[in-house]
Amino acid sequence: MRIIIIGGVAAGTKAAAKAHRVDQNHEIIIYQDEAEVSYSACGLPYVISGVIDDGRKVVIRQPEDFAKEGIKVFTQHRVTSIDKTRRHLTVKNLLTQADEVVDYDRLILATGARPIVPNVEGITLEGVLTLRNIRDLARFNTQLNTLQPKRAVIIGAGYIGLELAEAFHQLTIKTTIVEKGARILPRFDPEMAQLVHEHLLENQIELILGDGLAKLHGKNGRVTVIETKSGKMISADLVVIAIGVTPNIELATAGGIELGKTGAIAVDSRMETRTPGIFAAGDCCETVNRITGKPIWMPLGDIANLQGRVAGENVADGNVHFPGVFGTAIFKTFKLAVAITGLSEQAAQESGFDPVSIVMTGTDRARYYPDRQEYTLKLIADRQDGRLLGAQVVGSGNVDKMIDIAATALLGKLTCADMENADLAYSPPFSPVLSTIIVAAGILKNKLV
Amino acid sequence: MRIIIIGGVAAGTKAAAKAHRVDQNHEIIIYQDEAEVSYSACGLPYVISGVIDDGRKVVIRQPEDFAKEGIKVFTQHRVTSIDKTRRHLTVKNLLTQADEVVDYDRLILATGARPIVPNVEGITLEGVLTLRNIRDLARFNTQLNTLQPKRAVIIGAGYIGLELAEAFHQLTIKTTIVEKGARILPRFDPEMAQLVHEHLLENQIELILGDGLAKLHGKNGRVTVIETKSGKMISADLVVIAIGVTPNIELATAGGIELGKTGAIAVDSRMETRTPGIFAAGDCCETVNRITGKPIWMPLGDIANLQGRVAGENVADGNVHFPGVFGTAIFKTFKLAVAITGLSEQAAQESGFDPVSIVMTGTDRARYYPDRQEYTLKLIADRQDGRLLGAQVVGSGNVDKMIDIAATALLGKLTCADMENADLAYSPPFSPVLSTIIVAAGILKNKLV
Repeated sequence: MRIIIIGGVAAGTKAAAKAHRVDQNHEIIIYQDEAEVSYSACGLPYVISGVIDDGRKVVIRQPEDFAKEGIKVFTQHRVTSIDKTRRHLTVKNLLTQADEVVDYDRLILATGARPIVPNVEGITLEGVLTLRNIRDLARFNTQLNTLQPKRAVIIGAGYIGLELAEAFHQLTIKTTIVEKGARILPRFDPEMAQLVHEHLLENQIELILGDGLAKLHGKNGRVTVIETKSGKMISADLVVIAIGVTPNIELATAGGIELGKTGAIAVDSRMETRTPGIFAAGDCCETVNRITGKPIWMPLGDIANLQGRVAGENVADGNVHFPGVFGTAIFKTFKLAVAITGLSEQAAQESGFDPVSIVMTGTDRARYYPDRQEYTLKLIADRQDGRLLGAQVVGSGNVDKMIDIAATALLGKLTCADMENADLAYSPPFSPVLSTIIVAAGILKNKLV
Repeated sequence: MRIIIIGGVAAGTKAAAKAHRVDQNHEIIIYQDEAEVSYSACGLPYVISGVIDDGRKVVIRQPEDFAKEGIKVFTQHRVTSIDKTRRHLTVKNLLTQADEVVDYDRLILATGARPIVPNVEGITLEGVLTLRNIRDLARFNTQLNTLQPKRAVIIGAGYIGLELAEAFHQLTIKTTIVEKGARILPRFDPEMAQLVHEHLLENQIELILGDGLAKLHGKNGRVTVIETKSGKMISADLVVIAIGVTPNIELATAGGIELGKTGAIAVDSRMETRTPGIFAAGDCCETVNRITGKPIWMPLGDIANLQGRVAGENVADGNVHFPGVFGTAIFKTFKLAVAITGLSEQAAQESGFDPVSIVMTGTDRARYYPDRQEYTLKLIADRQDGRLLGAQVVGSGNVDKMIDIAATALLGKLTCADMENADLAYSPPFSPVLSTIIVAAGILKNKLV
């Protein structure tokens, strides 16, 4: 059986490796339109900042590594059409521009997502960048190394925007963030987003909210000023467009593969599209929110890996299921880790729950132990049965630990009453005697009906 | 109603505070035979090492703090007998030696545990110490400051022994550990304990296994040599007895309060003893292992706090339940954090399970992110249904995070299949793209029947 995988970053390479492990008799081919495969897009902001000293480090595996396992990788090959009836693809070699028609038995779409770039005047000026793939990184490095920018504007206050704000600060580039929304981090509840907002201001990041990019002004082909919708003119020698991403679904839709409600490719729990034999995984497809049961599009690297694993097993005649997501995410900006799992209080209300919540500050070590760090935890539960619906954590210290405990609690459908007697690991270097999440769950339990 | 609490360290003070919060109309009295209340015994090794620069820091609250809430604390008062029929106690003022008879309506026993000290020749020599309470700390400090020991022997390779080994190393005291068992850390599986064993050797700790304390030799009233059961003579100017603790149950048994199978005080899930109106909490009482359903004695500070909270609420006419423990524990020795939750593979076998396990090494950050740390995770599941039974983690880095994810998974009765698609928080500074526990769960799932 010939299995073709379109896209070779996270989901595609994971699916290939898994399919190969399940059954070595299949022919497995990856087509990737970039020059590299198997890289960590999430690592790119840390290459920009210099925390990761060499951009090549975020490339995990080379085509040769896959070749050793018998997986054929064609880089700089773009699949331009799918004929699902005849089960063949048209593939363009981007170096030679030659087209080839290739038969497949089964297909995995792992075409990913791309940055949304508004079609405004000046958008093609030099110095206007996105950060999504290795080519973007190369462009970034060129700008940073040859032009030594002093003044940057980031359009969009999402994860990438805030990670880059820290990176620019480390590079002593004065930075302004322009965000269309009335506040940053709309997935977070306002009081939690506010903690991040204040931290950005403390770190000399200028925040302009409720405003967007209107046009870009340049000189000699190079960006010099951004003009916002409200008419603000901001000098900039570097502009990053980070207003979000959109799934690469054009190839799928042209091939007659159905999309879901979110606008990403629809899949069942086996990661199979509505066209039998064609699977999808990663940022190009949607999934299910395990709390609301509704479709959700969650383009994150770890989810792409999980889904790739499931698609890879099933494409090779396996029968495993991807159960969906809780929307767990974390990012770092300056000294803060910022994390969420499940529903925010606001999202819980919008989904028809009657949520009750608690916000409290805790520390990651016993109060008398040196170098302890603080964080703020918000815990949200259903007022009726006390089941946890979500958590948000902002601070320094073990934010990642707190959010993963909460994410595991959501997975176990645990209630406040369950969590207030959780048996978590205590020793002064690692935790206060009662973990903040235990204390918070106890207080939250008392707020239930 | 007069509520008397016997013991004022962890469970006792927590119970008092909780009972007071539930109903301010009760009279609440704590009798504590030490000079201090409300201190963290778990912090003491870090005072010895100097990581915590002042021993007073581990004392959390003073009697005056309780007085402000209307809770009466009598330090240096020892309850010497309980008359459960007449509902009164005899209390000795240790300063005046005066005895007093005091009535109670309800009682909480929070008498804790004490180090086991073998009755061998020379045990009372100067320089032979235990580390359990503030008085022990004072003795330790006297020995360390005035006698500047160069050579220590620790009897017992449990948590306290290994924490102290690190402390002594920091104080440049050459240290030998003598352990009766054939290996250290018997609650851990051999291959995991071995990692700690090797780390101790790398840090110049001498380990003598399968041997015990026979007698202590001294000169001018001061210890100079320990003689082991096998006849080894080891020079030492400091000897720490750390072979374990035993519950303080003598007061309870003399008062006709029943013990459980473990030898600690028997309680129901409301933390009430078999004598109605008399509760117990903390190291003096037993609890239930939530995996085996069997009684277990788990004298740990966090459990004492959880139980104190439950006993405090119920003594004040509440009705909450303590569900038992998974035996989650963590400690630090040198650069390693060492953690366990649930059953070891060996304990699972002994409890009649058919366990299957996986041991793997992981990192706490993306592989290209600087300063990542490694750890080894062992995950154990039931071969029949894949339900997780336990985890052990040894290493540097986020050991505490891994064990708390596992402990929460046990609480949720999660299986390998659940955990292999857990939605944990990923970003390069906080985790590899798929958390080690996710990868381990996936591999373990494939080992099931």
